[in-house]
Amino acid sequence: MSTPGGADAPPRVRGLDTLRAVIDKVRVAVVGVGNNTSALVQGIDFYRATGSLVGLHRVEIGGLGVGDIDIVTAFAISDAKVGRDLHEAIFEAPNNFPRLREGDLPPSGVTVRRGLAGSEEIERVARELAGAEVVLYSAPSGRPDVARAYAEAALQAGLAFINTTADPVARDPGLLRRFEDAGIPLIGDDLASQFGTSVLHHALLRLLEERGLTLTSSYQVNLGGTEDFRNLVENPDSKMRSKRNALGTDKVQLAPLAYMPHLKSQKVAHLNVEAQGWGGTEISLDVRLRVHDPSGAAGVNVDLVRYAAVARRERRGGCPAEAGEHLKSAPTPGSRRTG
Amino acid sequence: MSTPGGADAPPRVRGLDTLRAVIDKVRVAVVGVGNNTSALVQGIDFYRATGSLVGLHRVEIGGLGVGDIDIVTAFAISDAKVGRDLHEAIFEAPNNFPRLREGDLPPSGVTVRRGLAGSEEIERVARELAGAEVVLYSAPSGRPDVARAYAEAALQAGLAFINTTADPVARDPGLLRRFEDAGIPLIGDDLASQFGTSVLHHALLRLLEERGLTLTSSYQVNLGGTEDFRNLVENPDSKMRSKRNALGTDKVQLAPLAYMPHLKSQKVAHLNVEAQGWGGTEISLDVRLRVHDPSGAAGVNVDLVRYAAVARRERRGGCPAEAGEHLKSAPTPGSRRTG
Amino acid sequence: MSTPGGADAPPRVRGLDTLRAVIDKVRVAVVGVGNNTSALVQGIDFYRATGSLVGLHRVEIGGLGVGDIDIVTAFAISDAKVGRDLHEAIFEAPNNFPRLREGDLPPSGVTVRRGLAGSEEIERVARELAGAEVVLYSAPSGRPDVARAYAEAALQAGLAFINTTADPVARDPGLLRRFEDAGIPLIGDDLASQFGTSVLHHALLRLLEERGLTLTSSYQVNLGGTEDFRNLVENPDSKMRSKRNALGTDKVQLAPLAYMPHLKSQKVAHLNVEAQGWGGTEISLDVRLRVHDPSGAAGVNVDLVRYAAVARRERRGGCPAEAGEHLKSAPTPGSRRTG
Amino acid sequence: MSTPGGADAPPRVRGLDTLRAVIDKVRVAVVGVGNNTSALVQGIDFYRATGSLVGLHRVEIGGLGVGDIDIVTAFAISDAKVGRDLHEAIFEAPNNFPRLREGDLPPSGVTVRRGLAGSEEIERVARELAGAEVVLYSAPSGRPDVARAYAEAALQAGLAFINTTADPVARDPGLLRRFEDAGIPLIGDDLASQFGTSVLHHALLRLLEERGLTLTSSYQVNLGGTEDFRNLVENPDSKMRSKRNALGTDKVQLAPLAYMPHLKSQKVAHLNVEAQGWGGTEISLDVRLRVHDPSGAAGVNVDLVRYAAVARRERRGGCPAEAGEHLKSAPTPGSRRTG
Repeated sequence: MSTPGGADAPPRVRGLDTLRAVIDKVRVAVVGVGNNTSALVQGIDFYRATGSLVGLHRVEIGGLGVGDIDIVTAFAISDAKVGRDLHEAIFEAPNNFPRLREGDLPPSGVTVRRGLAGSEEIERVARELAGAEVVLYSAPSGRPDVARAYAEAALQAGLAFINTTADPVARDPGLLRRFEDAGIPLIGDDLASQFGTSVLHHALLRLLEERGLTLTSSYQVNLGGTEDFRNLVENPDSKMRSKRNALGTDKVQLAPLAYMPHLKSQKVAHLNVEAQGWGGTEISLDVRLRVHDPSGAAGVNVDLVRYAAVARRERRGGCPAEAGEHLKSAPTPGSRRTG
Repeated sequence: MSTPGGADAPPRVRGLDTLRAVIDKVRVAVVGVGNNTSALVQGIDFYRATGSLVGLHRVEIGGLGVGDIDIVTAFAISDAKVGRDLHEAIFEAPNNFPRLREGDLPPSGVTVRRGLAGSEEIERVARELAGAEVVLYSAPSGRPDVARAYAEAALQAGLAFINTTADPVARDPGLLRRFEDAGIPLIGDDLASQFGTSVLHHALLRLLEERGLTLTSSYQVNLGGTEDFRNLVENPDSKMRSKRNALGTDKVQLAPLAYMPHLKSQKVAHLNVEAQGWGGTEISLDVRLRVHDPSGAAGVNVDLVRYAAVARRERRGGCPAEAGEHLKSAPTPGSRRTG
Repeated sequence: MSTPGGADAPPRVRGLDTLRAVIDKVRVAVVGVGNNTSALVQGIDFYRATGSLVGLHRVEIGGLGVGDIDIVTAFAISDAKVGRDLHEAIFEAPNNFPRLREGDLPPSGVTVRRGLAGSEEIERVARELAGAEVVLYSAPSGRPDVARAYAEAALQAGLAFINTTADPVARDPGLLRRFEDAGIPLIGDDLASQFGTSVLHHALLRLLEERGLTLTSSYQVNLGGTEDFRNLVENPDSKMRSKRNALGTDKVQLAPLAYMPHLKSQKVAHLNVEAQGWGGTEISLDVRLRVHDPSGAAGVNVDLVRYAAVARRERRGGCPAEAGEHLKSAPTPGSRRTG
Repeated sequence: MSTPGGADAPPRVRGLDTLRAVIDKVRVAVVGVGNNTSALVQGIDFYRATGSLVGLHRVEIGGLGVGDIDIVTAFAISDAKVGRDLHEAIFEAPNNFPRLREGDLPPSGVTVRRGLAGSEEIERVARELAGAEVVLYSAPSGRPDVARAYAEAALQAGLAFINTTADPVARDPGLLRRFEDAGIPLIGDDLASQFGTSVLHHALLRLLEERGLTLTSSYQVNLGGTEDFRNLVENPDSKMRSKRNALGTDKVQLAPLAYMPHLKSQKVAHLNVEAQGWGGTEISLDVRLRVHDPSGAAGVNVDLVRYAAVARRERRGGCPAEAGEHLKSAPTPGSRRTG
């Protein structure tokens, strides 16, 4: 699971083989201690403790397993989370992702730091990122300036940056070029969930097409109970646009997102597809999907973090092609130069 | 619907361009005048009359459109159908596929002939097949001897043969070799519906796998109202085996098929898929599918008939590779020689 | 469709038995020529033509069948409808209730009149109502002044008035008293559909309670495609309040109404009920309902119109108790005196 | 869990108020240690431990709460269960009802006895029933002789008898008369689940009727994973008959029961109801129900046990009217005399 040779990049000399396993681990700084971070942190613990491989999209990437990811730094802005051990902070309201295993997690040893409030703090944050390899930006969408400030801090500190929000960061050509020139990965934007409504709906529409059916109409209803979901309900435009892109047709009617706190971190979706087959006869498909939204994010972040680490160790700057499978809005290849 | 002139075997010299459209038409003999034949016959009429392309898997195959298919001969065994014009016989009980267009169809000019009752009638049937190019065997599954007798008759008459039933015909190596040696196509066995429960269920399971989810359990319930479906309910074994093959996993529980006459030619299926995602969290998928079974067959038969005609005109014997997309049990390629 | 002889006030002496059938017919003026009126008009035609009794809540009320209802006057405000024969106007956009029977309806003989634009037109409308017995107010909700102006006109003309909207008319104590004093029925407010989401959801919750289950959570999603539905989407407050009242619990989460034009006059609802049974074990109920909204209104209006006619003929003023079964917000009994 | 002092027959003179709570407890002998007994035993523990009232149909019956039920004797025939403490035996395969609370139950003090193998053992069983008040017969359906032998034993021992199976016991007029004459309650036959498919389906059909809709068609699919369910799959006739009775219409199509072991003690049902409303327009209702079968039985048994105890204490022989709400096939009232 080690990375032979490699890892010379940023920066430690490895004196002893016995340190290898430790040295190879991916050291991640997370920005945002919401449900998605809770799912990531608890999931890593779950896989380490159980040895299970359930639900993993990729067991190994460049020799790195899920258990080889260490969260070494965390930033948040809520007073309830800052100053707390990460393993406590992930259970603070409004987080509502369930406990994956019975009993309390032991302390992580990572104390949540206060997140960046303005661009004048970039240098402070850059200093505090020291020791990490990858910055996973997992804060709510809707604050592009903040996202970019963290990207600046990562660049200063020489760390790979992953933007999971819909805000344009990797799609900022100037910023992307600077990461490329520095040989530092910049991954983004906008996470495609491991298994969400868009993935499923798109697959169904594609299947219909493959089989030669003619789409008559289709709708999608999404209900969710997370804080992220509540934010989307109030500012639905970019989400709806992103959904429409993901579906690749304007024949799908999207119901307004519905925030239902009792669902907690679950999302429920109702899909309907009406089509015509041979001789115009009707085909009708009704689907109900129930899924934990933060699991869908963590299941993808766990790949992106490893793609980022591997690319950085190989000094590949910009957005690595392999990350594209998990992104809704990757920068267009033409805009990327190899570092 | 008969084809003036043309019953001779391929290839033909086309003297006059003005005859081309007529000559090129695919002349089909159907065996069995059940729902699937009703759907095929009515569908061809629908596409000719409306110019619509809805629900078509392939608009053209080798230059042949759907409207280029002529049913020139039909065999049945029911007294209610034999001796009737094909356009009346397709509405006889127990057929219950709906009328695709309002009003009566004009007479087809094809009088339904009495089907083969034993192998001593092969020569009679072979004579009556004269004038056709392709025999579409669309009788109920479960009588392999009858299926093979019609295949013999087709071979004698020099016509391509399509076995849509689960009975082994193309999988009979001796028979296959004789078609190959004669340069005559033999397509089969067992139709994969254009859009049925297996296609959908398989696509969902494959999607889960692609996304890295772990299947926990799954079930499938099928309800149908056709005579074919009633036969399957009473002799479910081969159908269940075929379903299991199509799904490619034994983790799917299959409920007993349920015959519900009020559904008529519709099939309703309930699918459930339970899976685990990141950290073992649950994902749950419930699907209801409603589809006209005979449409699913006709939508595929319309391709197979054209594949068969093209292959015959090109003197390619045996089971053409392109037909494989629509077959559940094609002969293994190794068993096939090129004629 | 007019009623010879008959515009005088109830009760009338019937000279001749042979005239009975004619004289007894209910003469209705409709205000609003939207989908609900289309459903009512077409439905009456359907029952007369077919003799069918399908879907009827009450076959007879006071001896009056559905076919005994004559629409004798109609008001609308859309230029596309005013001046047209009622049997054409009901198919004008944005109406999208389907044709119940093939072919055109013969002319009704009722030309749609221009509806009241302000209270100065009350007298004009009152004159034009002459010849009717019952005014069915079936315009969109949200214009209480207009609703009350029509009620005034009905009172002046001595006609029963039915308010199917959520606007307070029968709940206006002063107005109710004047109808009571005049011995004229005033029925309202707010129609309970013959079979809608609220009726179903309420029945399920009541069943749970009867069986001793404990409700954990519940949600309701409504999708619709009528113009009325589009108005509700934009002004959802009173509808949501009315739904909450109908359900009798605040444990049901209501998703925002979703306007989906492709549904036309259909409404689709998704209901979920989660409950606990013995020992806290989980019970889960998912329902999909598909129904034509205007049919739900017409199926109730056809009763209210007959209740109104019978009460008027019996000189019972105010809101008759029997109408309560179809109203969401009937005036409280205490506020009613008998005329 | 045994009851000190109290095995004498009803009614007893209560010397001391301080003993009341103890004396009043219902002392129950269960026959059959399957899932339904597991649900009953665990549920009583759950309600005692948590003080919760969730999912209870009746909190008190004759002053008796759920926690006032003591299981004092248990019979089984499986070697894996006989001789074990009841609190262990209820988790033996093929039982698969889940643990309602974490951790092991403390020993009950009740050792499972070997059940009756033939009528010559009636006296032995009658002796072993001493100390109980009520015999709850909760063995699998299909062995009427065994059921009646236990009823004989109960009668000999002077205990109330409850037959939860579909086998005719209370419907045996001779047996019923003897219980009546002895002033001993005999409750049966055939439990109506607290919330099962029949209850729900029947309620939906009744609602349709109340609202005046016309049923077009309906189907019901049942999937289950218990041993009881597996037995029904193999001997479906009486179950299907009982379902048809419960629904009160032959318009409902019943799919064959499907045994799916992965469901464990859950039952999943798919219901569909198609109806016509106003003007013949279509109404369509699709329901998915998920419920724990044994909970549905225990939730009803907990009432029947108390009805039986109260009736016995009041020396009311035969089948008490109040039990009728939970029985599918109660003896007809005319066949009962008061003791």
